[in-house]
Amino acid sequence: MAISNNNTENIENGLDFQPRFNADGLITAISQEADTGEILMVAFMNQQALDETIKTGNAVFYSRSRKKLWRKGEQSGHFQKVLDILVDCDQDCLILKVEVDQGQCHVGYKSCFYRTLDKNDPKKLRFNAEKVYDPKEAYGK
Amino acid sequence: MAISNNNTENIENGLDFQPRFNADGLITAISQEADTGEILMVAFMNQQALDETIKTGNAVFYSRSRKKLWRKGEQSGHFQKVLDILVDCDQDCLILKVEVDQGQCHVGYKSCFYRTLDKNDPKKLRFNAEKVYDPKEAYGK
Repeated sequence: MAISNNNTENIENGLDFQPRFNADGLITAISQEADTGEILMVAFMNQQALDETIKTGNAVFYSRSRKKLWRKGEQSGHFQKVLDILVDCDQDCLILKVEVDQGQCHVGYKSCFYRTLDKNDPKKLRFNAEKVYDPKEAYGK
Repeated sequence: MAISNNNTENIENGLDFQPRFNADGLITAISQEADTGEILMVAFMNQQALDETIKTGNAVFYSRSRKKLWRKGEQSGHFQKVLDILVDCDQDCLILKVEVDQGQCHVGYKSCFYRTLDKNDPKKLRFNAEKVYDPKEAYGK
């Protein structure tokens, strides 16, 4: 999204929090484990999800597929306790520094990023982690 | 984006790399410093940017504002050497594990995420880093 010059200085160098939601009213939010730096997941927030995250201290996203607030952990029990929220230069992306228990990804891994591109064949992936819980038990699938 | 049930198992648990570009032909890419875990920036790639990143080993993005490939470092000299590429469960987001020199953000900081929400006033930010280079020199502004 283009930023007018008048606002750029304030958005980039200022200390007012001015989250820039996209045309769908969403902002990208990355959950990163605070003590290890591991990126756990990437999702979206709308204004309400952001407000509730700040108010409750637990990560709340907006589910584009279900079109409603997604209170992470509500169903699985795997909450994300938010210690800090960082914002990037143009204020269209957030990092949530979180504390978690174990599995965060609905597939059963701690992080959603459990696969790495194969350097010998970039059409293929390799697993870089092992499942830490059984999603069938957590989600009753 | 909704995924049909037929494909979900393969996308989530398979080892075929099937990057899922959005309606604009873009996929989210997070640059993360490999040795520290620090998140440096979040941007987008189109298919061409991804192919060129894999081929050259240097991060290439797609600039939505300039509507063209953005070979990171071409102008500033701050390249990102890509050591690994990770993909998330639904294959609509990538992590680039990178090696960098110093300043990566065009504002002058190493990371774009140089501000943190103030816990006492969530409308305000505080700086969490100091500038590491002068963007006026790097970009000739």
